[in-house]
Amino acid sequence: MKFQIVGFTLGMLIGIVGLAELVPALIDGMHHHPNAHVFLINAIVCLFFGGGLIITNYSFEKKMSVREAFLLTTLSWGFLAFFAALPLYMSDLDIKFVDAYFEATSGITTTGSTVLYGLDQMSHGVLFWRSMIQWIGGIGIIAFAIVFLPFLRVGGMQLFQTESSDRSDKIMPRSGSVVSAVFKVYCGLTIVCMGTYYALGMSWFDAVNHAMTTVSTAGFSTHDKSFGFFENPALHYSASFFMFASALPFVLFIKFFVRGNFAFWQDEQVRVLSFIVIGIVGAMTFWLWNATDYTFEYCFRHSLFNLVSIITTTGFATTDYMLWGNFAVVAALMATYIGGCAGSTAGGPKIMRIIIAAKVMNRQIKAPLYPNGIFALRYQGKTLDKGVITSTLGFLSFYVVCNVFLTIGIALTGVDFMTAISSAATAVGNVGAGVGPIVGPAGNFSLLPDGAKWLMSFAMMLGRLEILTVFVLFSSIYWRG
Amino acid sequence: MKFQIVGFTLGMLIGIVGLAELVPALIDGMHHHPNAHVFLINAIVCLFFGGGLIITNYSFEKKMSVREAFLLTTLSWGFLAFFAALPLYMSDLDIKFVDAYFEATSGITTTGSTVLYGLDQMSHGVLFWRSMIQWIGGIGIIAFAIVFLPFLRVGGMQLFQTESSDRSDKIMPRSGSVVSAVFKVYCGLTIVCMGTYYALGMSWFDAVNHAMTTVSTAGFSTHDKSFGFFENPALHYSASFFMFASALPFVLFIKFFVRGNFAFWQDEQVRVLSFIVIGIVGAMTFWLWNATDYTFEYCFRHSLFNLVSIITTTGFATTDYMLWGNFAVVAALMATYIGGCAGSTAGGPKIMRIIIAAKVMNRQIKAPLYPNGIFALRYQGKTLDKGVITSTLGFLSFYVVCNVFLTIGIALTGVDFMTAISSAATAVGNVGAGVGPIVGPAGNFSLLPDGAKWLMSFAMMLGRLEILTVFVLFSSIYWRG
Repeated sequence: MKFQIVGFTLGMLIGIVGLAELVPALIDGMHHHPNAHVFLINAIVCLFFGGGLIITNYSFEKKMSVREAFLLTTLSWGFLAFFAALPLYMSDLDIKFVDAYFEATSGITTTGSTVLYGLDQMSHGVLFWRSMIQWIGGIGIIAFAIVFLPFLRVGGMQLFQTESSDRSDKIMPRSGSVVSAVFKVYCGLTIVCMGTYYALGMSWFDAVNHAMTTVSTAGFSTHDKSFGFFENPALHYSASFFMFASALPFVLFIKFFVRGNFAFWQDEQVRVLSFIVIGIVGAMTFWLWNATDYTFEYCFRHSLFNLVSIITTTGFATTDYMLWGNFAVVAALMATYIGGCAGSTAGGPKIMRIIIAAKVMNRQIKAPLYPNGIFALRYQGKTLDKGVITSTLGFLSFYVVCNVFLTIGIALTGVDFMTAISSAATAVGNVGAGVGPIVGPAGNFSLLPDGAKWLMSFAMMLGRLEILTVFVLFSSIYWRG
Repeated sequence: MKFQIVGFTLGMLIGIVGLAELVPALIDGMHHHPNAHVFLINAIVCLFFGGGLIITNYSFEKKMSVREAFLLTTLSWGFLAFFAALPLYMSDLDIKFVDAYFEATSGITTTGSTVLYGLDQMSHGVLFWRSMIQWIGGIGIIAFAIVFLPFLRVGGMQLFQTESSDRSDKIMPRSGSVVSAVFKVYCGLTIVCMGTYYALGMSWFDAVNHAMTTVSTAGFSTHDKSFGFFENPALHYSASFFMFASALPFVLFIKFFVRGNFAFWQDEQVRVLSFIVIGIVGAMTFWLWNATDYTFEYCFRHSLFNLVSIITTTGFATTDYMLWGNFAVVAALMATYIGGCAGSTAGGPKIMRIIIAAKVMNRQIKAPLYPNGIFALRYQGKTLDKGVITSTLGFLSFYVVCNVFLTIGIALTGVDFMTAISSAATAVGNVGAGVGPIVGPAGNFSLLPDGAKWLMSFAMMLGRLEILTVFVLFSSIYWRG
């Protein structure tokens, strides 16, 4: 195991966090808020610590093996959450460390569950820091998904390895340039989103923050009422659009901007995600329209916003959908188990895996009638090899099992069943919004017992890193060399 | 499609139901209860209808193809539930047809959820009929699992095909003789169970009824309080034992009685089921002992009975475990998703499939580290072929998807989330006991809306016939020939 390359890269990442902390330091400094010092001190700590790691591990080779990649990935998200939590803990928020760590993990994993109250009165530095770690977490996860995951062969993601190593579909020759193209698209989307929000009436500060947490499908807001603060239908519609766009495979944006190829509808994930959104939002709209006295537009808009927010694993809310009745609660919870497209900032099991599972199931219905028949499964016009299929189904099994054990674990801390199952789902799926009195849109995650917060922090990390990336480190085979 | 063989066999089965109805007719006749006439009339109807089918379809071939087997299986359970429901509907119970159909389906599928109140005052004929259809449903499903399922290659059950076609492990040369051996074991277990219950203080009538519904892991009782009526620890322990025994693969009993080979512990399913029971019951016992003032024996006994009842998909209860707190509720619900061993009367996803999924998951953790390594999975010492693995994971996917859609469907009828998810789980898994105010041990399924009862009736059938057996009939490929 070459620990040096792991240490060096980790040092770089911690250094980036340090540099990033200079921004909220500047913002709070401009407002003469005492939190400015907190951010400055933490920036120095990060730069010092990161710099130390860089210097002591400098004589590194450029090649990283699979084993180092696994270790680096888990360590990075863990360390970044820790260093991102420190300023929250030391600030004027006066919160316990578990809360700071939960909030930072929820940020860096782009989950968006918050334990903080009184956002509207909070220092701008803290608010900006929360949005910024989500934005960094968002680009981090796409880079991870594009560069590392296919290489780690986790959860069927080798599918994308095949895709990018196939000449005809090669977008960029080297992963470094793919990441830089993705970064440009990510920044571009954020700027367009910000401009739209501002044009539709948000303040500059709100527009910047919400754009950062929309494009990362993360969901922190600068207001306790989340998007419900903005009683502006145009903002709700545009946010729904940007959440949806951010849950699409970023490679398609690159294809569009680099090659002018509008290939969105040719992508199976995009089509299926669209149908799922239309189906669920449609059902909810009509159900709500039928069951309540709201206008059709109101029913459509709030169904659209809140369900797109959950399906894309963003976690914004415009209203307390818990009040819509039993069906809405179940629909909101079930939507937590879908997720956006693989290769985006969205969490959850991902549309790609749902498509593959659905194809396997469809084949299962036919297979018994033709015991000697061979039914090849195709995805995006290419035959799926058995490794991808088993790996995808294996991942989904892990996903279910993690949810089950986490639900039991959270229930052991004493909370009710609905809160436990929803907390587990929202953490593993990096969604951020749940159902029930505590984790629903009208509740607050700070009401959970500390044990549940630690469990959820671990689960958010687990879900963000596609579960197996973390579990591999716990296997004896990994350390045996 | 040879409809004749389907019609002939269906006629035989309906005829058997007709003959069976003579027993409750006799019981109610002895007590001079008017229900005697109801059962007699229904017996005649069944014999007439069944006889008609037999006569009109007599010139049949002996060989049945896979396609006929699928149709026959679904039609049999559907028709038997209908004919079993008629006497309940026409009796003095004064219930709606949906309730009678739900109760009969819950019986024939060995689920054990009841919509009836006032069991203690009910005519003995009706009580016996409920127990009897469960007992018939129990032997029916083992016969189906042994004879048909391996042949239908549904949900990894071809594993047992390989097993029985392998010379060294051949138990009986032909499936007919296996079924007759299973029938003897089933009757033997029922008699031993009945004798034990009687010896420990049950009345003859209670002993016969509870023995029939224990060995079929079905769970109808003759008392509203279920096993809680018997405040006798010895009865609770012995019932736990018989429920557990009935959830073991029946082939092992045959091995034991025919060849004197005590091979229970050599079977992976038995070992894993034992560990699951020990783990869950142990956790629950200590949790309960810690959280309440009950004695250790009380905590152990009630944890054992109620969790074994759920895991083996029986559905008896000794007490209202909803009152034990949040953890107990979650544990009871999660236990619904396990199920007994394949090749027994138990429902649920089955231990065999859980073992295979766990092995696939374990391999998933190792695979990324050895991209070119081949990890063969073994079950009972034999290498699992890829067909069995995909088929098992495909089945589990169907299981999850059915639960999700059923939960949504039941929620649409207006019930709360906990009731919806638990009703779905208890129906698809043929468990019978749920959580929440309506379907928990203190509730009654009659409180559900009619829509939910129809959905659950369909789901019980679906779960009992291993889902795909039914779904195959809905595929266009099936009817195309």
